[in-house]
Amino acid sequence: MKEIMVVVRMKKTGATKKALVAAGVAGFTAVKVSGRGRLVTDPVQIEECKAKLLAMGMTDLGDAGDTDKLITSFLDGSRLFPRRLFTILAHDDDVPRIVEAITKANRTDYGIGDGAIFVMPILDAVRVRTGESGEAAIW
Amino acid sequence: MKEIMVVVRMKKTGATKKALVAAGVAGFTAVKVSGRGRLVTDPVQIEECKAKLLAMGMTDLGDAGDTDKLITSFLDGSRLFPRRLFTILAHDDDVPRIVEAITKANRTDYGIGDGAIFVMPILDAVRVRTGESGEAAIW
Amino acid sequence: MKEIMVVVRMKKTGATKKALVAAGVAGFTAVKVSGRGRLVTDPVQIEECKAKLLAMGMTDLGDAGDTDKLITSFLDGSRLFPRRLFTILAHDDDVPRIVEAITKANRTDYGIGDGAIFVMPILDAVRVRTGESGEAAIW
Repeated sequence: MKEIMVVVRMKKTGATKKALVAAGVAGFTAVKVSGRGRLVTDPVQIEECKAKLLAMGMTDLGDAGDTDKLITSFLDGSRLFPRRLFTILAHDDDVPRIVEAITKANRTDYGIGDGAIFVMPILDAVRVRTGESGEAAIW
Repeated sequence: MKEIMVVVRMKKTGATKKALVAAGVAGFTAVKVSGRGRLVTDPVQIEECKAKLLAMGMTDLGDAGDTDKLITSFLDGSRLFPRRLFTILAHDDDVPRIVEAITKANRTDYGIGDGAIFVMPILDAVRVRTGESGEAAIW
Repeated sequence: MKEIMVVVRMKKTGATKKALVAAGVAGFTAVKVSGRGRLVTDPVQIEECKAKLLAMGMTDLGDAGDTDKLITSFLDGSRLFPRRLFTILAHDDDVPRIVEAITKANRTDYGIGDGAIFVMPILDAVRVRTGESGEAAIW
């Protein structure tokens, strides 16, 4: 049994929820967080990302006046952006299918900021209602 | 040393907090999330759950007009419901006692939605104030 | 690859964010939670903590009227206090450096409540945009 943690764009909340339900997860929670992925520090890469983000309209970074400044603060990490954090419970066998479903639902053309998926171990689970533990608790 | 993650009904926030303090946890955080447990897809089980939830008054699913629709959306996963997520830090020896305390505080007669408890490994801990690490950091 | 979970004072949000960016983390999220650390139950220790917290002005526990009552509720666990929870993604080699950066940014003279750092295992990671998995997904 595993915990899958996913950080996605706010506007992908609904699509991710639908993908999870369709993929048959054992349960999940969603919460709004501030966050950011790895920094972009290579000057060439920064220019490439800027150009791409500007071309895309940057609808995910808010509608502040100075787009160039906004993109710079996004790339250098001086500003955080709203994201949705999903915590998903999954049986071992279902993990690849769920990861694929999340990936499919969240891939965009922005080139940066589509999010990431992390798989963590769960040692034991207990269903409160029945007191069942182990795999039985989440099936 | 372990992380215990628990998802409970909003109205069980206080009872869970009291149970944790009484059980002697090393620390915990609580945050409001949206969530759902496993889906109910078997038609017979759906009818059983519906009947039970209706009989209970469904006070946990909100007070929207159409109760039947609300229950269906709860069972099929098309809607999320507010829950409280606790993240608890515990010494290995205390885990069974804490799990039991949480279970006791959260069991209801609703038959569904009482929540679940997950135990995860912690590799190391550091107390900021003292710089202590390992078990000493959380005792 | 590891998950680092940190609970810090609300007013340390900015300093922690800066420390993380400077330390070169692979990504992180931040969310407001309610929480508390271990309880202080030894009567002598309670008096020591009370004196220290009072001398410090208790600016972290809010500005409710009765300071003595506020401190007691903090120490005995009957009240939770606002904290910022960071979830950080890090390569194995970077963990000690990141832990040190967080510690440095969050140590105060209050003597209690500076927070704690927890290191958890990550089994796998997938970057949504590229489908890369493993270490490559977060570098």
